[in-house]
Amino acid sequence: MGSVLIRGGSILTMNDACDIVEGDVAIEGQHIVAVGADAGRARPRFDIVLDAGGAVVMPGMVQTHLHLCQTVFRGLADDLTLLDWLQARVWPLEAAHTPATLRVAARLASAELLRTGTTVALTMETVHDTDAVIEEVAALGLRATIGKCLMDGTSGTNVPSRLQESTRDAIDEGLALHARWDGAADGRIRVAFAPRFAISCTRDLLEAVGSLSRTHRMLVHTHASESRGEVEIVRRDTGLSNMAYLDAVGLASPRLCAAHCIWIDETEIAMMASRQVKVLHCPGSNLKLGSGVAPIVELQRAGISVSLGADGAACNNRLDMFDEMRLAATLQAMRVGPGVLPARDVVWMATRGGAQALGLESAIGSIENGKLADVTVVGMDGPHQQPGTNPYSTLVYATHGTDVRHVLVDGHVRVRDGHLTGLDPAAVTHQARGAARELMTRAGL
Amino acid sequence: MGSVLIRGGSILTMNDACDIVEGDVAIEGQHIVAVGADAGRARPRFDIVLDAGGAVVMPGMVQTHLHLCQTVFRGLADDLTLLDWLQARVWPLEAAHTPATLRVAARLASAELLRTGTTVALTMETVHDTDAVIEEVAALGLRATIGKCLMDGTSGTNVPSRLQESTRDAIDEGLALHARWDGAADGRIRVAFAPRFAISCTRDLLEAVGSLSRTHRMLVHTHASESRGEVEIVRRDTGLSNMAYLDAVGLASPRLCAAHCIWIDETEIAMMASRQVKVLHCPGSNLKLGSGVAPIVELQRAGISVSLGADGAACNNRLDMFDEMRLAATLQAMRVGPGVLPARDVVWMATRGGAQALGLESAIGSIENGKLADVTVVGMDGPHQQPGTNPYSTLVYATHGTDVRHVLVDGHVRVRDGHLTGLDPAAVTHQARGAARELMTRAGL
Repeated sequence: MGSVLIRGGSILTMNDACDIVEGDVAIEGQHIVAVGADAGRARPRFDIVLDAGGAVVMPGMVQTHLHLCQTVFRGLADDLTLLDWLQARVWPLEAAHTPATLRVAARLASAELLRTGTTVALTMETVHDTDAVIEEVAALGLRATIGKCLMDGTSGTNVPSRLQESTRDAIDEGLALHARWDGAADGRIRVAFAPRFAISCTRDLLEAVGSLSRTHRMLVHTHASESRGEVEIVRRDTGLSNMAYLDAVGLASPRLCAAHCIWIDETEIAMMASRQVKVLHCPGSNLKLGSGVAPIVELQRAGISVSLGADGAACNNRLDMFDEMRLAATLQAMRVGPGVLPARDVVWMATRGGAQALGLESAIGSIENGKLADVTVVGMDGPHQQPGTNPYSTLVYATHGTDVRHVLVDGHVRVRDGHLTGLDPAAVTHQARGAARELMTRAGL
Repeated sequence: MGSVLIRGGSILTMNDACDIVEGDVAIEGQHIVAVGADAGRARPRFDIVLDAGGAVVMPGMVQTHLHLCQTVFRGLADDLTLLDWLQARVWPLEAAHTPATLRVAARLASAELLRTGTTVALTMETVHDTDAVIEEVAALGLRATIGKCLMDGTSGTNVPSRLQESTRDAIDEGLALHARWDGAADGRIRVAFAPRFAISCTRDLLEAVGSLSRTHRMLVHTHASESRGEVEIVRRDTGLSNMAYLDAVGLASPRLCAAHCIWIDETEIAMMASRQVKVLHCPGSNLKLGSGVAPIVELQRAGISVSLGADGAACNNRLDMFDEMRLAATLQAMRVGPGVLPARDVVWMATRGGAQALGLESAIGSIENGKLADVTVVGMDGPHQQPGTNPYSTLVYATHGTDVRHVLVDGHVRVRDGHLTGLDPAAVTHQARGAARELMTRAGL
């Protein structure tokens, strides 16, 4: 691990003042050591020099809701609403996974995420074999907080037996993963609890997760209030709104990362704000599943930290943060009005908001001295980006993931001149097709 | 002009049966002359052979609502609703255009459209100097039906004086452009009437356009029922709903291409169906301006032909049909439910629907013997597209414009291996930045 100079870009620092600085970013080992016009003089020479001429240098993007294991399900589960999508496709396919197909899925996801400028992921995997996903992610270079999916209840949904587990097994395996992996790969890997959603977990499980997450300072990553059907089941089973139920079982805290939060009311928003719950917004997935549009403007006005994620390739079907940024902005324009969520605020959600959700704001999310070197360099000179007078607008509305030029995670160059340094795209493609065929056969689809 | 063989692809013919054929496409001059496994034997040799291995070969995409002249306004008009957007930004910038800046705008648009697989455009330009746009488009290779914007009324909106013209001048210039250009560039260029929208035109103008469009068999390209503010003004001024007014002035016919059609009711839909009005759907623009989501499912159930367009870079801010296809599908999933607009139907809208709107269905819109050689070849082997078991799903949900490998218009290769053959992207970028600076200064922005 050596030194890297990113030379000659327009640096969107995303520091508290959102300063934009012309110049260089100097990196030594895992850390950013200098930013600005004189950064190139931080050392007499650098091991690697990356050209950022005509480019924006920004913090690596943080996607806070992903299912890497579903990446090989892309296109296999179109045209269904959430609960049908789970029962008819996603659960049978998850139940068919093996460690080998999980590795392929993690590889496929890593290829797309890194190539399009995402450096950090909060992911919920399937019930079994999460070690395989973690090993692959650790090797390929993403920074990730990963949880095995916890599912010990069904609430009348049709869950394959392989995905049903006892409360004790769910908790034990979640803790064991934490013990084995938290802090691995120079600290890049962290482990969270990931109860799937209220209706696939018993109250005992959720209460245990609430208690253990306090003791072990672990994040809790779950789905909440994504579809009307889901919130109706929670109300039927508990007599409470979904978020009130999560609060009642002791989960509402600054460590709770709640994906979607579409069907929530003012009372729930006030509670979430007071508990500092984090909202993970997935506009692409919400549209494609027909779930709805989350009240992001109201959440932000309440002071709730919102970040972004693509969710999974089975419901999006992309993992490209540029698509999520654009949708986040334009869907609120439609829902409330143009201007309620300016482009700069969306870039904030994609960087600082993500760092906040992960409890890593002191370490990542901005380009500042001493922060970890998670950096995305985006070419800004394509005709489709012109005239490009405002870099935030250009990033959010006009830029594609393929405009990403270089990506560093933890000081390692993972994309250089648009090419993945540690993965062969043709091999990944070949493996993904094979894994999908195998899974469809095994799932009987 | 010679012969081209597109070799070894999966051909999405978009013929009436939506056949998918493995094999080659042979082209002689302007026309497709053979399709399928034996197409390579149509001639002993071909002047150009394009590799389509691992790719889909599809009809060139048809965008039916664009404003090429606005391409240099990208990012200069964010965060505004339609009428504010027009009055505060787009009209002042259009009024500042010169023939030179219009040429740059047409070049910038052509670069993005061709690079991302759009071969055909229905465009509304500004009030003046439309010859400059037409000349540029004719030279760069798009197939296009172009109209100068007609504006002889204000309905209380704040129109710059340079964009106000007399009824007589509007009509005369529209007809003169038709006389000068219709059928030019081997038939690639056609000329339409383009009254901006009901509230910027007098009743006399709209009636004259209705009558002359019948006489000259010209398309009428307009905006209709895009925003609530607009339909309220029409009702105030005419006592009629927007579409009923367009019918009353004699415009509702198979030649009427009406962009947006968001705020329409059942009575209007029934009238539009009976008159065979064409609807031009612009989901990206509609979201960003906060206009709403058009009732595409209801329009299709009524038998109305719907096609797609990006609108303009000032309100989208992309001109990439892959983004419009994805939004078209997912917005209806949110509005009505997943499955109401399957991916194949969206690809139909992007190809056959566009050909129908332009009255060119016998000439373009599918890969069939005898049709004009407008062809887009899309690479399908990127990791972000895997496993890609259904090509329509992969195209609509997972593919980016940058996956386009080759593009032919009228038998000419305009993109080869992802590179524009007739445009230097760096030069286009440089010119666009200069034009934008000049326009902002002249518009006082």
